[in-house]
Amino acid sequence: MPAPIPPPPVPPPDAGAAEASAWDELRARMGAVEHLEGVMGLLEWDQQVFMPPDAASARGDQIALLAGLVHERLVHPALGEAVAALEGSADPTRRAAARVVGRRHRQAARVPGALVQAQSRARALGHQAWMEARAARSFAPFAPALAELVRLARAHAACLGDPDRPYDALLDQHDPGATAAALRPMFARLADGLAPLVARARRPAAAPLRVPRAALLRVSDRVIRAMGYDLQRGRLDESQHPFTVGMHPQDVRITTHVYEDDVLSTLGGTIHEAGHGLYEQGLPEALRGTGLCAAASTGLHESQSRFWENHIGRSDAFLEWLAGALREEAGVEVDAAQLIAGARSVTPSLIRVKADEATYNLHIIARFELELGLIGGDLPVDELPAAWDAAYGRLLGVAAPDPVDGVLQDIHWSAGYFGYFPSYTLGNLYAASLDAGMRAELPGIDAAVRGGELGAVLGWLRSRVHARGATADADSVVRAAVGPRDPVEDLLQHLRGRFAPAP
Amino acid sequence: MPAPIPPPPVPPPDAGAAEASAWDELRARMGAVEHLEGVMGLLEWDQQVFMPPDAASARGDQIALLAGLVHERLVHPALGEAVAALEGSADPTRRAAARVVGRRHRQAARVPGALVQAQSRARALGHQAWMEARAARSFAPFAPALAELVRLARAHAACLGDPDRPYDALLDQHDPGATAAALRPMFARLADGLAPLVARARRPAAAPLRVPRAALLRVSDRVIRAMGYDLQRGRLDESQHPFTVGMHPQDVRITTHVYEDDVLSTLGGTIHEAGHGLYEQGLPEALRGTGLCAAASTGLHESQSRFWENHIGRSDAFLEWLAGALREEAGVEVDAAQLIAGARSVTPSLIRVKADEATYNLHIIARFELELGLIGGDLPVDELPAAWDAAYGRLLGVAAPDPVDGVLQDIHWSAGYFGYFPSYTLGNLYAASLDAGMRAELPGIDAAVRGGELGAVLGWLRSRVHARGATADADSVVRAAVGPRDPVEDLLQHLRGRFAPAP
Repeated sequence: MPAPIPPPPVPPPDAGAAEASAWDELRARMGAVEHLEGVMGLLEWDQQVFMPPDAASARGDQIALLAGLVHERLVHPALGEAVAALEGSADPTRRAAARVVGRRHRQAARVPGALVQAQSRARALGHQAWMEARAARSFAPFAPALAELVRLARAHAACLGDPDRPYDALLDQHDPGATAAALRPMFARLADGLAPLVARARRPAAAPLRVPRAALLRVSDRVIRAMGYDLQRGRLDESQHPFTVGMHPQDVRITTHVYEDDVLSTLGGTIHEAGHGLYEQGLPEALRGTGLCAAASTGLHESQSRFWENHIGRSDAFLEWLAGALREEAGVEVDAAQLIAGARSVTPSLIRVKADEATYNLHIIARFELELGLIGGDLPVDELPAAWDAAYGRLLGVAAPDPVDGVLQDIHWSAGYFGYFPSYTLGNLYAASLDAGMRAELPGIDAAVRGGELGAVLGWLRSRVHARGATADADSVVRAAVGPRDPVEDLLQHLRGRFAPAP
Repeated sequence: MPAPIPPPPVPPPDAGAAEASAWDELRARMGAVEHLEGVMGLLEWDQQVFMPPDAASARGDQIALLAGLVHERLVHPALGEAVAALEGSADPTRRAAARVVGRRHRQAARVPGALVQAQSRARALGHQAWMEARAARSFAPFAPALAELVRLARAHAACLGDPDRPYDALLDQHDPGATAAALRPMFARLADGLAPLVARARRPAAAPLRVPRAALLRVSDRVIRAMGYDLQRGRLDESQHPFTVGMHPQDVRITTHVYEDDVLSTLGGTIHEAGHGLYEQGLPEALRGTGLCAAASTGLHESQSRFWENHIGRSDAFLEWLAGALREEAGVEVDAAQLIAGARSVTPSLIRVKADEATYNLHIIARFELELGLIGGDLPVDELPAAWDAAYGRLLGVAAPDPVDGVLQDIHWSAGYFGYFPSYTLGNLYAASLDAGMRAELPGIDAAVRGGELGAVLGWLRSRVHARGATADADSVVRAAVGPRDPVEDLLQHLRGRFAPAP
């Protein structure tokens, strides 16, 4: 007979009532915040998909206004009091909400509303300047807007954390607890493992397979349906740079960019965003208004996109199914071996979103270094194009003939996202561990994927990752899903298996 | 030598400073209101054009939240104080702003925030229920949502005006000063004039001209460009029911509904919405944040759509140009005589938006009577389908085989718009007077229209109507544009000329 479990400490009755009222208070306030953020999501989605060009300035004002309203609500003292009343709750959900909302409350309180509005406005104008610079194939039209975004990001970092480590404050916004000091050795270990792998696996790209836009969109639609992406609560559109906006689990939108001469990049982008979209559609809707119906971190969000893009989308099994889908939807003569050869080519190249699975993380390491310079103040914006070219020469051995294929290729900086890129590699690391753990549990998964049956994969991710929302931090979610693992080793192991299979 | 002009009364210096500060206060507060309303416009546009179906409930919550924020800002005592300080200003713009904003402030103050939010939510759900009812071809799925919308509209009216005349309070929302007592005899005079005209001109519809969707969209695009609609600050999409949303003069979106077997209805809808869109694009942007960068009334807004749809779009001269555009863009064999015959057919029919110019106002009179019953409390929602059929039998002599072509045909009630339909006939009346005045000033206009040169028409409307915004009430705008006229006589005169030309 086991020893009796001691009863939990009983709070005095009025403490229970106070806690219930704090919980109502937090839910009402965060409910409004989440709806306002959903509306901002729509404004940003529209801006990149359908907005008339001359509306950019008005759109910037609208987003800035809403950002100010969110900020007002986050810093409200009543929210801070509700958080304080819930921190010691016996209910783990309430404690988790107090942790997540308390973090947002404190961070918001450190940032003046005027700075938040200035950043929102600079983002809208930055996106427009970036589009103009791309059209002009010149960095110059983007430089002033980018300088302003960097200046505001530094000001933002100074409000949040240690003024001597401004980049850490930005990393922490996306991946709580991440620091440059921790990432550097992890990235170095990864790079050290990648170098021989890339050298050995290096193989030029396969001849491109050309598929017309309409057919590629039909195949994209079929792929996301097979993945379980729900079009009753989402849609797929086209945009310059693929992205996902989750406004609510019932309204999650993804975009793709069609390259008629690059089927695998196009579909890779679609699958990547659908991976994000599945996470958003699978978040715990019952926890709306608590801060917990949200991703645990940006890195974990990226793990969901990279999991689908790489571990499923580039697997032999999936590509065998995809070849059939391409033949049926696009009427092109293609067999699985061609697609597999395309997905196995390893070629250091210019464009991150078109990079193969093996060299991809080198693109991220380049951006990590450049961002450290921009945000640390060692790299002026005017010198960024030269620094970009130098980093690409050193890490990948390639040179962009044109800034559109170089420093202007990503949307992130135009939207003020600094400290975001490392999340992609963190995502690759989490994804590798999740894949290793899932395959140990579901040994027949390749056969199902080969038949286009992806329900078991989604079901596994739903229960282990999506449904947990932000009730635990990203490391804890992954550890609970697959136990303690070494993600760098998992990723290298996966790549070694894929690019240098045993004879 | 003329007598010296007496100097204007000089306000004491501190009064000038107080007025300047009140003006800043009003602009800041109304600037936020107008941006929030622009955002609500996007949410509503998206809901009807691109939103995934299951997002309706979340969208309703978002709109309700924003409606509450607008309401909070409109009723704020500081706004009332700013209005009071500006009512006696020597500056006519400030006085006009005080009039328009003061009216909104007082009306908002009379309506509890909870009612505003309930209405916004009921509108979103009403739209969804209406779509479902149309799909099911049955009034029943719409009935509970409509009953709730009517209940809330009655509650709204009771807050605003004389409880014995609830419909007047709703009319006044759209057309300040309009009353059922004033409209009844005007509509009766119009109906009396129309009866012999319709009897004499009655002629069955011409054989339909079939044009595929893509070609009709190309022609629509060409038509709106010819009208001067600016696609840098707008866009054209498809929706179930055509509509216009002006979020800002730099972001004005219109939609159309394509009927492949009815070219004139499709293009009539496009032209109608582009007429609304031109008004919104031509509003005085410098007056944003004052309440004056807005239409003077719903009736005047409708005058702009009906002016283009009827007085330009159905003129011989325009149809001659349009025949050429159709041949070029759609490759169909059509001559102007066919289009003119189509536009001159007079046939009492079921669908308002497809009605010919002569019978159109009978559709409005039916709705006016039904709304008086619904809002006055004499007509329960359950009896509406029968009352609809009775009104159509009496006024137009037609019977709908199906509620989709009857009581479910309009979007308005599903969006909680009661008291709006009379604005269409008010718009027809204003448009007739504007057309008569414009043609007196621009005698060569038909030749220009025949050549697709519509710039002079737009220029005239821009200076006489659009650029004035809400600086004056609708009657004053029209009087200043064309002098004192009898609009019922102008409209009957126009129709007599069009349908019974002198031999």
